[in-house]
Amino acid sequence: MTADLIKTVFQPALSNAALNEGNDFAQLPVPAFGTEGGRLVVSVDSHIVKPILFPGGDIGRLAICGTVNDVAVSGAIPLYITAGFILEEGMPIKMLKEIVQSMKQSADEAGVILVAGDTKVVEKGGADQIFITTTGVGWLDGPSTIGGQYAKPGDVVLVSGTLGDHGIAIISARGELGFEADIQSDVAPLNHMIEAMIKAAPNIHVLRDPTRGGLATTLNEIAQQSDVGMYLNEDTIPINSVTRSACEMLGFDPLYMANEGKLIIIVPPGEADTILEVMRNFDYGKKAARIGIVTLEDKGRVLLKNALGGTRLLDMMAGEMLPRIC
Amino acid sequence: MTADLIKTVFQPALSNAALNEGNDFAQLPVPAFGTEGGRLVVSVDSHIVKPILFPGGDIGRLAICGTVNDVAVSGAIPLYITAGFILEEGMPIKMLKEIVQSMKQSADEAGVILVAGDTKVVEKGGADQIFITTTGVGWLDGPSTIGGQYAKPGDVVLVSGTLGDHGIAIISARGELGFEADIQSDVAPLNHMIEAMIKAAPNIHVLRDPTRGGLATTLNEIAQQSDVGMYLNEDTIPINSVTRSACEMLGFDPLYMANEGKLIIIVPPGEADTILEVMRNFDYGKKAARIGIVTLEDKGRVLLKNALGGTRLLDMMAGEMLPRIC
Repeated sequence: MTADLIKTVFQPALSNAALNEGNDFAQLPVPAFGTEGGRLVVSVDSHIVKPILFPGGDIGRLAICGTVNDVAVSGAIPLYITAGFILEEGMPIKMLKEIVQSMKQSADEAGVILVAGDTKVVEKGGADQIFITTTGVGWLDGPSTIGGQYAKPGDVVLVSGTLGDHGIAIISARGELGFEADIQSDVAPLNHMIEAMIKAAPNIHVLRDPTRGGLATTLNEIAQQSDVGMYLNEDTIPINSVTRSACEMLGFDPLYMANEGKLIIIVPPGEADTILEVMRNFDYGKKAARIGIVTLEDKGRVLLKNALGGTRLLDMMAGEMLPRIC
Repeated sequence: MTADLIKTVFQPALSNAALNEGNDFAQLPVPAFGTEGGRLVVSVDSHIVKPILFPGGDIGRLAICGTVNDVAVSGAIPLYITAGFILEEGMPIKMLKEIVQSMKQSADEAGVILVAGDTKVVEKGGADQIFITTTGVGWLDGPSTIGGQYAKPGDVVLVSGTLGDHGIAIISARGELGFEADIQSDVAPLNHMIEAMIKAAPNIHVLRDPTRGGLATTLNEIAQQSDVGMYLNEDTIPINSVTRSACEMLGFDPLYMANEGKLIIIVPPGEADTILEVMRNFDYGKKAARIGIVTLEDKGRVLLKNALGGTRLLDMMAGEMLPRIC
C-alpha cells in the first residue's frame, strides 16, 4: 500500500533526482563547493511502532538508529539528527522522559547530535501516544559509489547477523504470540561498523538495512534495481532459534520479518572475507555470514536453495506486512 | 505546556550548542571544511493543523512554508526539505494528492527541493487524517549574525504585514466563528523576500516569523533572549479589518494570533527604511510597517502605547493557545 502510494501520489508530484534514485538516502551536492566535491546525505523516517516500549528497545532508540543506519548505508558519516514529536494529550511524562533519554543514549552511541526538534500535542484520541519523525544529515567526501543499483553478477551476498528478531520481539510484546518469547529487538546503530567495513573494503557495491519486509523484500528490491538475480543458500542464513520457533508457530517466514540492526552487504568476492572479519569484531556483527551470490541469470528474482537440492522463489512480500512494526 | 515540556524533558536530556541557542534553526559547521567556513542550517516542524484544508492554504503548503521560513530567518538559503507523513487508514487518496501537489507548488515557489520522504499508515482512529513533519536544510556562507539574541537598544521593530490572519482563517474554517469570515491564511514562503532584504540591509539583527503565540509572544521571547525592552506603537501595527472584527467578537487579541507568512525584523535605525522599501516590492510585504523600538529600559518586557498616551504590558501568552493551529 505504501509503495503504491509513493508511486501514485508522491513520485509523480515530487519527482527529482534525489528521490528517484530509490535509495533510503538523498545525496546532496553542497552548492558552494560545486558538484565535484563532498555531499550532504539526508534521510527521513516516521516512527509509529506499537507498543512504544519493547524488549531490547523503544520508539526513541528506533527513531535514532533507523535514521542513522539509513544515512550510514550511503557510505556517509552521520552527523546530525532532527526530530519532530507528535504527542497524544495525556501521554505520561515519565514515559516520554524515558524515550527521550533513550534517544540521547542511542545518539551518543552513534556519535550523532540531535540538533533540532519540534513538539506538537494532539487532543486525546487524535494520535496514539507518540510518533517520532527523524531526519538524519551526514557527510560524504565525494559521490556515493554504494547503492541498490550497483550489485554485479559474481558478487557475494553477506548479512551481519540473525534475521527477523525485531519483528518477533514486537509481536511478542503485543502479546500476540500467546506466550512470551525470550527474544530482544536487534535495534542498533550500525554506523561505526559500516565505517570500519568501508575502510577495510573500499569496493562494497550495496549496503542496506532490511527493515520492513525483511531480507526477502530488500533483496528483491536490489535485484530489480541492479537488474541481476540472486541465489541464496538457505542453510547459511543465520536465524535465532527462538525467532525460528516463534515464526513456525505463527506461520511467518523470518526472511520477511523486520530487522532494525542488521545489514545486507553485496561485494566483489575478493573483499567478502575481509568484511566478514571486520563485522565479527563488532558486537553487532558477531553472527555475520555469507549467504549467497549475485547472478546474471534469473534477473530481478531471488532464489533460495537448500541442502537437499530444493529451490524456491523468494518473492516480494505477498499479502499484508505487519502493521506498526517500526 | 510545550515550552514546559522542552525545558523539563527535551533540553535536559538533549542539551547541545545548536539546541541551546534557542532559535528555530540549528547552525551546523560542515566538518570537512572547518568551523570557519560555511554552515548547514536545519530546522524541523511537525504539522497537525485542523482542518487540513483551510482558506488560503492546506497542511501541505503550511509544512513547506513553515520550515522554509524557519531556515530562511537564519539568513541561510533554504535548499532541501525532507517530509515524514503519518496517515490515518482511510484518508482519501484524492485529498492526499491535493496536499502533496500543494507541497510541490509551495516548494517550487520557494525554490527548495523535497529530497527525502517517508510514509507510515496508522489504523483508523490511531491518528487524525494526516500529520506532516518537515525538516529543512539550508546553506549559510559563514556564521549567522542574525538571531533572537542580537536585538540592541535603539533598534527599530518592523513587521512585514497584517497580523493574526492565519489564526482567524483556521478558526473560521472550523466553523467556530458562528459565521464565515472572509479571511485567508497568510501562509507563504518568505525566503526570496528575506534574501533581498539581507542583500539590501546587511546589518539586520533579528528576523523571526511570529507563528504560534503571534507577535506578542515572539517579541517577548526576543526581549528576553536579548535582555532588552520594547515599546510598540499600537496604532501602527497593521491588522486586517476582518481579522480585527473577528477577534473583537471572539474576545481574542490579534497580537497573540498565529501567522504563517509574516516576519518580525529588528534592525539599526539607519537600515529600517531600506528594508521597508524592499519588503513593499514583494507581494508578501506590501503592508510592511514600522511598529516600535528596542529600549534599554524595561528589560525583558514589551510595552504597547496608543495614541491617547495609554500604555499596557504586552505579556507572554496567558492561558491556553489555540490547539492545532499549525
